[in-house]
Amino acid sequence: MLVALAVGLSPLPFTVATVAAQTPAAAETEQKKSDAEISSFFLDNGLQVVVIPDHRSPVVTHMLWYKVGSADEAPGKSGIAHFFEHLMFKGTKNHAPGEFSRRVSEIGGQENAFTSNDYTAYFQQVSPDALETMMSYEADRMHNLILTDDVIGPERNVILEERGSRVESEPGALLGEEMDATLYQNHPYRIPVIGWMHEIEKLNREDAIDFYQRYYAPNNAVLIVAGDVDAENVKRLGEATYGKVPRGPELPPRVRPTEPEQNTRRTVSMPDPRVSVPSVRKAWVVPSYTTAEPGEAEALDLLSEILGGGPRSRAYEALVVKEGIASGVGAYYQSDALDATAFQVYASPRGAATIDDVEKAMDAEIARIVADGVTPDELEQAKKRYVRSLIFARDSQSGMARIYGSTLTTGGTIKDIEEWPDRIEAVTTEQVQDVARRYLDQSRSVTGYLLPAEGERS
Amino acid sequence: MLVALAVGLSPLPFTVATVAAQTPAAAETEQKKSDAEISSFFLDNGLQVVVIPDHRSPVVTHMLWYKVGSADEAPGKSGIAHFFEHLMFKGTKNHAPGEFSRRVSEIGGQENAFTSNDYTAYFQQVSPDALETMMSYEADRMHNLILTDDVIGPERNVILEERGSRVESEPGALLGEEMDATLYQNHPYRIPVIGWMHEIEKLNREDAIDFYQRYYAPNNAVLIVAGDVDAENVKRLGEATYGKVPRGPELPPRVRPTEPEQNTRRTVSMPDPRVSVPSVRKAWVVPSYTTAEPGEAEALDLLSEILGGGPRSRAYEALVVKEGIASGVGAYYQSDALDATAFQVYASPRGAATIDDVEKAMDAEIARIVADGVTPDELEQAKKRYVRSLIFARDSQSGMARIYGSTLTTGGTIKDIEEWPDRIEAVTTEQVQDVARRYLDQSRSVTGYLLPAEGERS
Repeated sequence: MLVALAVGLSPLPFTVATVAAQTPAAAETEQKKSDAEISSFFLDNGLQVVVIPDHRSPVVTHMLWYKVGSADEAPGKSGIAHFFEHLMFKGTKNHAPGEFSRRVSEIGGQENAFTSNDYTAYFQQVSPDALETMMSYEADRMHNLILTDDVIGPERNVILEERGSRVESEPGALLGEEMDATLYQNHPYRIPVIGWMHEIEKLNREDAIDFYQRYYAPNNAVLIVAGDVDAENVKRLGEATYGKVPRGPELPPRVRPTEPEQNTRRTVSMPDPRVSVPSVRKAWVVPSYTTAEPGEAEALDLLSEILGGGPRSRAYEALVVKEGIASGVGAYYQSDALDATAFQVYASPRGAATIDDVEKAMDAEIARIVADGVTPDELEQAKKRYVRSLIFARDSQSGMARIYGSTLTTGGTIKDIEEWPDRIEAVTTEQVQDVARRYLDQSRSVTGYLLPAEGERS
Repeated sequence: MLVALAVGLSPLPFTVATVAAQTPAAAETEQKKSDAEISSFFLDNGLQVVVIPDHRSPVVTHMLWYKVGSADEAPGKSGIAHFFEHLMFKGTKNHAPGEFSRRVSEIGGQENAFTSNDYTAYFQQVSPDALETMMSYEADRMHNLILTDDVIGPERNVILEERGSRVESEPGALLGEEMDATLYQNHPYRIPVIGWMHEIEKLNREDAIDFYQRYYAPNNAVLIVAGDVDAENVKRLGEATYGKVPRGPELPPRVRPTEPEQNTRRTVSMPDPRVSVPSVRKAWVVPSYTTAEPGEAEALDLLSEILGGGPRSRAYEALVVKEGIASGVGAYYQSDALDATAFQVYASPRGAATIDDVEKAMDAEIARIVADGVTPDELEQAKKRYVRSLIFARDSQSGMARIYGSTLTTGGTIKDIEEWPDRIEAVTTEQVQDVARRYLDQSRSVTGYLLPAEGERS
């Protein structure tokens, strides 16, 4: 079963960050071509359809995004969004369990699914002549799933095992969960996407049916079709398949509890015998593209690039190359979120260096940006690197589909995606310094320490 | 306006703890007398009535407890339980705003109200001949409140000012809030009883009406009448007043999200220019009387007494008397909670001692109990001190009323209160050592540091 789980920030690997492919962006040259061709329309039942033509090869990427993620779960029901992603691979009134997946496989296609805090998505990559079949299956499971205890029980065990292997047996993942639970004092981003073990254990058929009826409906979804197709054809096929699914309930706006003002500096320490190399990460609550004042999210994206976005970044240059005290460093900004989100930096010591050494050195790099800002030249370089990496993301069909899907399910618009490169270009050195000063405040940070069992930090 | 707010654990003063008056208990001699006299019955509309005769003086304590507190609030609506406590002092269909309070005052009575995580209570202390009047007013405001925007708006401002003076301008209270938000990763005890400022600001008439209709009803309340009364008379008056209030909706069981397994050691630091004397507190999630295995909560009560329950306690003897490094120490176990609750220790350094010194000394006292247990003699002394302090609590009418009210609204029974002294007597030294070992685990603790502005802890 090709079911993937995007577990949000938590189990961020301690390696040099690469730019997240799903960040909305487009290179200027690419953009001109796209402007004319990308189309968006709604079916009568409320389903938004976005068509992204790409005729370079006879492939189509079919991605259905639901505007629901773990942060939409009811209190005490953590994990139901991800649980439901699994259940979508079970049988429907029209198709046996596993039939859809077998079909994808038989025609040489690929499929996957993922759940985040804010969205749940399903996709297949197939030859264009199979698009209608994919749409038909995907539309079918939007409202014809068979949800009996016989289906729910065994799948719950699968998920408990998944949590066991991905979280319980991974000290870094456990630390990440408790950092999130500490960082967010009020917002549901506090809760792991996969769910707390003791709550997954109690998820039942009634929870699944409630969730399905509430959130799985055309008027709560966005269909992205990228590839060797044209909009007219997609529209016709969409009406013949998804168009037959009845509209679901009108949902209220996705308003979650927001963070209070934070006034403290917090630490989360996890000593564990399975840890051989210690590491430190530090996180702050910062605005997302959806919640930010104009220019702030773009400046945070560039700050993350300048501070820790790869081997040209300040932290890498200082800690890895010059001082030689770290084996890896990085920065990460989870920009595509419906609500205020996280900015993280992380590092692992090397040789005789301690975890304190790398933390202090990382703090010093942040303090230097807060005090002196960044140079026009490094900002220019960061913009170039950033936009270039996004061209690569856009160069793949699934990359494009992810950019559009994640943006449209986290409060953004197609216009936001189109204007994004210009907004990145417009960021000034003052703005980068300003967001560093405003948001990377040590007295409101959460620092996580992953430690070998004996190495309790004093 | 005599409106009090019980803000739970958060703003625990950094002084030597006294035993909480509301812990259910009774001395044996007292008990025999009470067994025969305390009566409990239900009115037809579901109101539980408990009558505690006490004929020593011509006074009656009339306390109405609702089984709703801040932990029952909907996500994003923090503060509504406490807000509603304020609104209960406004006008009803039958009485002008403030009339009830004026009446209490005119007859020389006293009144107050308080909100906790688990309950909200209103009480008056008056002469017995005024009991019927009190019951009549209290029953009236259970279902006749006038909730207009004219009432809500100004009272919201009062509460925002209350939060400003009690929390925002008190570094210790702010630290306590963020410790709770860190200690509880999933349970709503994470959220302050008074509410987050930004959520209080948005509470409106609709929220108030929803809350009132859902929770303020006879079948969600317990009436405690203690004093110079007899049960027959109280029953007759109860039927004539409360008996006329219609039954409210049948509420589901009060099941809140519970804590996941905690795997980390956390710290919360708050440097603030208003702090002159630093202090440290450490907290753990432990079972309450309602959630504990038999004997565990009693052992935790005695552990808190032995470790930090006043000048005879181990921590006081060691840190204050012998080493002279602390100006105050204590331990506190919030035993009467519907769900898993907190055990806290706290200390302030004195003279040349640092906050690290007192933390280490406090940790050492805990480690000593974990390693070597407590002596039969000190356990005996602790039981005596503990039970004696509860006799004092029971000796006051309002103390008795609070014991019964808080127990009955947090999942306990009258039988629990009656059997409580025997259960305390039955605790063994092994049990005390066992709960210390099981629950006061440093690797799952949250430590809070209240620091002068310049004194960031390294």
